[in-house]
Amino acid sequence: MTKKGKAAPLGASKGSLKAVDELYDIASEIYDQLRDGQVPKMVLPLRTKGNIRFDTRSQVWKYGALKGARTAKKLRGALMLLRTMYVLEFIKGMIDQNKSSTLREMYYISEGWDLAKFHAQDESNLLAEDLEIITECMREDFRLRPEESGASVIGNLTIEETTRNGENRRINCRDDVGDAGYTIPYNVEKEKVRFRSHDAKFVMAIESGGMFDRLVENGFDEESKCILVHLKGQPSRSTRRLLKRLNEELKLPISTFTDCDPWSFRIHASVAYGAIKTAHISEYLATPTAEFVGITPSDIVNYEMPTDGLTPRDVGALHAEQTDPRFNDKFWKEEIETMLRLNKKAEQQGLAKYGLDYVTDTYLPEKLGELGIF
Amino acid sequence: MTKKGKAAPLGASKGSLKAVDELYDIASEIYDQLRDGQVPKMVLPLRTKGNIRFDTRSQVWKYGALKGARTAKKLRGALMLLRTMYVLEFIKGMIDQNKSSTLREMYYISEGWDLAKFHAQDESNLLAEDLEIITECMREDFRLRPEESGASVIGNLTIEETTRNGENRRINCRDDVGDAGYTIPYNVEKEKVRFRSHDAKFVMAIESGGMFDRLVENGFDEESKCILVHLKGQPSRSTRRLLKRLNEELKLPISTFTDCDPWSFRIHASVAYGAIKTAHISEYLATPTAEFVGITPSDIVNYEMPTDGLTPRDVGALHAEQTDPRFNDKFWKEEIETMLRLNKKAEQQGLAKYGLDYVTDTYLPEKLGELGIF
Repeated sequence: MTKKGKAAPLGASKGSLKAVDELYDIASEIYDQLRDGQVPKMVLPLRTKGNIRFDTRSQVWKYGALKGARTAKKLRGALMLLRTMYVLEFIKGMIDQNKSSTLREMYYISEGWDLAKFHAQDESNLLAEDLEIITECMREDFRLRPEESGASVIGNLTIEETTRNGENRRINCRDDVGDAGYTIPYNVEKEKVRFRSHDAKFVMAIESGGMFDRLVENGFDEESKCILVHLKGQPSRSTRRLLKRLNEELKLPISTFTDCDPWSFRIHASVAYGAIKTAHISEYLATPTAEFVGITPSDIVNYEMPTDGLTPRDVGALHAEQTDPRFNDKFWKEEIETMLRLNKKAEQQGLAKYGLDYVTDTYLPEKLGELGIF
Repeated sequence: MTKKGKAAPLGASKGSLKAVDELYDIASEIYDQLRDGQVPKMVLPLRTKGNIRFDTRSQVWKYGALKGARTAKKLRGALMLLRTMYVLEFIKGMIDQNKSSTLREMYYISEGWDLAKFHAQDESNLLAEDLEIITECMREDFRLRPEESGASVIGNLTIEETTRNGENRRINCRDDVGDAGYTIPYNVEKEKVRFRSHDAKFVMAIESGGMFDRLVENGFDEESKCILVHLKGQPSRSTRRLLKRLNEELKLPISTFTDCDPWSFRIHASVAYGAIKTAHISEYLATPTAEFVGITPSDIVNYEMPTDGLTPRDVGALHAEQTDPRFNDKFWKEEIETMLRLNKKAEQQGLAKYGLDYVTDTYLPEKLGELGIF
């Protein structure tokens, strides 16, 4: 690796320094096992729907007690441990040099790791998550970042971002940006993004770009003192982390406004309850008090929404949700049953049936009023 | 439609006023045909690969002489004409009220149009494009906008954007934004976005977010005086329009940097030569002098890139490109043949095989040097 290229001048953050320590511990443990003549292994929670449980303290879903082991008894496990050692070295190198890399770049970097080369991106992604679980650090501390692009934000919220050149830059997400909003970076931890001031009463996270643009055009953020966040489909980690921080630090209620289909329910679940894939960091990512403002299956009936029929894949997803502990409450049980009975789904932009202003003049005031947010 | 909601205060732009006139002309023509006892019809160019031809004056690919007719002789055609009348009225209403709508919203609004209701989004998208062709206006003039999100831009370029509140806001795409860059709005016409100052020597349009972030982290924009544009896959109209304007107004060379697969070649083609779907506005969207800086199939060999095998779908796409007039030159013929012979594709992030700085220290200087850009 050459030395050139502008260093991201965050310095080695507290998180990154802790990460280096934790990674050393993993290496030591493997080393000790080998020295003592044991077959080396790493023990990890099982990452399945069956092994998530509700943590009453933090009010989010986390991994339970079921564990699996990565052991060197089999060739596959041995290669995975070897790979882990290479990854530890790679991450330490990045922290030393103030660099970061995408998960995809790490996958390609492994071309030089001989036997330890990754054979599919899934392997490298999984390993990055495993390291998070063992070290209780975040991927961001390892300087690993995703491809996914962050949320857009519009509203009277002033953030301070530490840029790649080390400058602390204040940006008001309404007055200093274009109409497409402020795009959050992949790392939204305090070392990178801090909240400075706002006049918002609540935050609304919106699934589709068309609806986000509608609320922006209709001035909903200004009239309702609301921070609008475009989720861009299934929200990225940085988006969920931003929502969590807005809720925790600024005490703002979070609401999610999505289409009405089983995939949209999962978007809400990942914001409110935690996602199965990232249950080890639910406390950082999930906002248990987030309220779903629709579109619900009941809304399909109440608002006589334009609909499409459910596909067999939709029905399968709904059945899976019926056994998903995150949806095991009265509200979701009833709504999912309603949807299966109607055999219909709907899109949030379907509210345009009643005109372009119906959503801001009627639908949202009614729904937010019921929830006491408006 | 209620009256509330903040009006986008662009006023009725010159483009929109022309659009209203042109839409009246369509309505008059249909009216005249009906009055004269004729079966009404609209005549349009055929929108197929076989009907695009190279326009030597503008150096882009446009529709040729083959025409088709929408006639009311059949029920389907009659409904399409009826729908057209409703759309004309809807667009005129938006221009009068300073509103805009997504294509998806127009689709749902048609729920109230009785027999003229759209049955699929394809129908409404197609009609919007047809109206562009007949009127020689742009969709933006009709106040219709897509769902797609615009490109991210990083570099020392100061733009002035007229925001939804009518304010003219100057934003430097390096010094006034976060590390995720400036996101261009869906409308990048001069009434909305103007260029104010820059120190760039060229523009690089990049396919993947990971590579865009790599060039940003490595400071390639500053060191090479380059404006970086993230295409986000197949580039949206607004992204291609922005590139065209950067080339035409600021005389900046445009380069495209993509993965090496048949779909990436199409990304370059849509930037440089014009897309088949939007050939009626190629003059506005395509930048004929745009240079492809790779990854090329030759680079796979020269740089010993990590590769994946071609899928049958990839091979099919390459064969289609061999009969696509836009790829009918020596460079593309040879590269496509090379790719079929190698039976391999590669990703731009595969350059990480040689370290995180290889792309900015070695690959891009070599490739841009060959093209005389660097």
